[in-house]
Amino acid sequence: MGMTMTQKILAQAAHLDQVEAGQLIEADLDLVLGNDITSPVAIREMDKFEQKEVFNKEKIALVMDHFVPNKDIKSAENCKCVRQFACKHDITNYFDVGQMGIEHALLPEQGLTVAGDVIIGADSHTCTYGALGAFSTGVGSTDMAAGMVTGRAWFKVPSAIKINLTGKPCGWVSGKDVILHIIGMIGVDGALYQSLEFTGDGVKHLTMDDRFTIANMAIEAGAKNGIFPVDEKAAEYMREHSKRPYKVYEADKDARYDEEYTIDLSKLRPTVAFPHLPENTKTIDEIKEDVVIDQVVIGSCTNGRIDDLRVAAEILNGRKVKENIRCIILPATQEIYLQAMDEGLLRSFIEAGCVVSTPTCGPCLGGYMGILAEGERCVSTTNRNFVGRMGHVKSEVYLASPAVAAASAVTGKISSPEEFGMWEERKV
Amino acid sequence: MGMTMTQKILAQAAHLDQVEAGQLIEADLDLVLGNDITSPVAIREMDKFEQKEVFNKEKIALVMDHFVPNKDIKSAENCKCVRQFACKHDITNYFDVGQMGIEHALLPEQGLTVAGDVIIGADSHTCTYGALGAFSTGVGSTDMAAGMVTGRAWFKVPSAIKINLTGKPCGWVSGKDVILHIIGMIGVDGALYQSLEFTGDGVKHLTMDDRFTIANMAIEAGAKNGIFPVDEKAAEYMREHSKRPYKVYEADKDARYDEEYTIDLSKLRPTVAFPHLPENTKTIDEIKEDVVIDQVVIGSCTNGRIDDLRVAAEILNGRKVKENIRCIILPATQEIYLQAMDEGLLRSFIEAGCVVSTPTCGPCLGGYMGILAEGERCVSTTNRNFVGRMGHVKSEVYLASPAVAAASAVTGKISSPEEFGMWEERKV
Repeated sequence: MGMTMTQKILAQAAHLDQVEAGQLIEADLDLVLGNDITSPVAIREMDKFEQKEVFNKEKIALVMDHFVPNKDIKSAENCKCVRQFACKHDITNYFDVGQMGIEHALLPEQGLTVAGDVIIGADSHTCTYGALGAFSTGVGSTDMAAGMVTGRAWFKVPSAIKINLTGKPCGWVSGKDVILHIIGMIGVDGALYQSLEFTGDGVKHLTMDDRFTIANMAIEAGAKNGIFPVDEKAAEYMREHSKRPYKVYEADKDARYDEEYTIDLSKLRPTVAFPHLPENTKTIDEIKEDVVIDQVVIGSCTNGRIDDLRVAAEILNGRKVKENIRCIILPATQEIYLQAMDEGLLRSFIEAGCVVSTPTCGPCLGGYMGILAEGERCVSTTNRNFVGRMGHVKSEVYLASPAVAAASAVTGKISSPEEFGMWEERKV
Repeated sequence: MGMTMTQKILAQAAHLDQVEAGQLIEADLDLVLGNDITSPVAIREMDKFEQKEVFNKEKIALVMDHFVPNKDIKSAENCKCVRQFACKHDITNYFDVGQMGIEHALLPEQGLTVAGDVIIGADSHTCTYGALGAFSTGVGSTDMAAGMVTGRAWFKVPSAIKINLTGKPCGWVSGKDVILHIIGMIGVDGALYQSLEFTGDGVKHLTMDDRFTIANMAIEAGAKNGIFPVDEKAAEYMREHSKRPYKVYEADKDARYDEEYTIDLSKLRPTVAFPHLPENTKTIDEIKEDVVIDQVVIGSCTNGRIDDLRVAAEILNGRKVKENIRCIILPATQEIYLQAMDEGLLRSFIEAGCVVSTPTCGPCLGGYMGILAEGERCVSTTNRNFVGRMGHVKSEVYLASPAVAAASAVTGKISSPEEFGMWEERKV
């Protein structure tokens, strides 16, 4: 029987010729990831194991990104724990303040994730690397601990949903709108423990940053992973960022999918997920009443990459953030920060009245750097708008693209850049 | 009887020809300042007054700087309270995220503080504006509330200590070393409720940013205020930044001082205040053993100005922050941030492996953006190194200049740039 992209990667990693959905397998891991919140738990878990050494010091990535520079004593103690562990085990890919960035932007940029990899991370958005044709998925800290020691993890082989993308997105439609549209369509449990496998002619019109955004939010539809085929654009990205060899897996022609959807990208419109679920989507045209806001967040593992900042800066350049609106820009990595500075994007942000943060997950999960008071509303390029996600239980988060977020910062209500006459033909 | 600079300003503001030390007076206020921590307390206090209106909406400055972008729900609620108050009373000088900076760097930059002013602020480092020949001092939130309503405040006229500065600082000696030297000499209660009045030929060799740093830390010697004479450099600063007229007060020749000290600036050496008091100073030459550190903070109302960043960048440019050291740069205002970007300083920082924060007080008072774990040590350009000031009660803060802080980031222990052969002749 034919296998999906995901199934082929897992079969190879499990040294099997064939796997099928539902089968339990044990796979070799190419990378085990943890951050400053989840790693300390995994490290304490490892203490209970007989085996105390890590399986491969080069195949573990520990990224301090959620609450650094330390937001409080607890986060300082967490980072200290991980720093000492990294030092003791001579972990090659330990990323501390100053060398760092948000894990899911940082690892591909540093060349640590390539096509064909099997990656687990103690963070739910580990599915991001599917943009490069890798199998990657979020796990708990105990699985991370086991992975660090054994270099292996067990999986139930997922079945798949095929998302056939056609056409070319137009105007301000970006990867974020694509994935919000999908989640709106199938729901937050629409792909429970399934792979979201993207394919079709439309893929070539998506930038790599679009694809990272889409794969990143596969988990918000409940998916085990999201995965893209490796085309020339993906190959070029990997050549540019990584020295590791990569392996391309294509789905078999007779691969079985539980469901298939076709999405014409040219028909999509800027899309916003209303509180309190990513599936509560409306297109910008369906929002009839003014949704007045207090804050805008542009960043995160979902939308803090250079393409995202370029779009936001294009809109904010020469304009002003509306009075009493806080607009917080979070470049996802130090490298993106530097590039945004070189391209003049940071200047546009500051002159418009935004603040530019250190790379951090910060506000996305209610950590710091933009927490909401009771009754406040935020348009955010992040990935979750659950109750209380960014602060007070009576605050609201509206998920959107960088374009919509930036335009909303200017108007003080949910807006598309089209509102002030900006219309962009995508140059992809 | 002759009056000091401070006494002359207070006499005029109290509509009196003559005041003397110890006298209780009521003075007109040119500015009442509050921040996101102290203003909510003052605003709630104002509710108890019969008079509900502010005395002058242009003479109140409300600066959101301590815990913004909001670090948690509590700080979000505090900012919301102040924002609503500012809106209701149409406060001209309300500074929110994006237009803001650290209050004591922001107000002079925005031209809100000039020579001859009487300024109260619900923040202990309000004494900073003495660098411009103003009388400014920290008060409690209740006094701030009364000041906002009446435009007046009572003071006990302070006696004074005269600090006669001679000579020219050399090498990496800066304003921070001058004030640390003074506090080391007279102690943290050495100027209790007195004015520190600076004078002498040495003043002309201090940049305005040096003077802001010195006046800023007058409170760390217990002083009511610190004040500098207005020379051409100060006048130029005010012309550049403010449209307000200023008034210059000179101490009478027969003004009475409780004590007088003469400090030869050319004899000073880079100075570090060891835990847990600013008076525990040692010159860099007196530090015989390696003091290994974990973190460096360069910023704050004391040392986050452009001169400070220039010195730090000069040292960090082309060098690397030592492994496992976090180096956090906090430009004090958005304008300083932009200028530092234009001058390439931010590039030097990022390339060296620092992170550049939004303007905030953050770590200085243990707020966020660099909190210390148990046993950790930080070299910081901030103003207080009390027990637990920056985090865990068993952490340690070493106060130093930006030059020493930057050099320490490179070596991983308390160091002067002289250690790696850098020697700079000051160009003042």
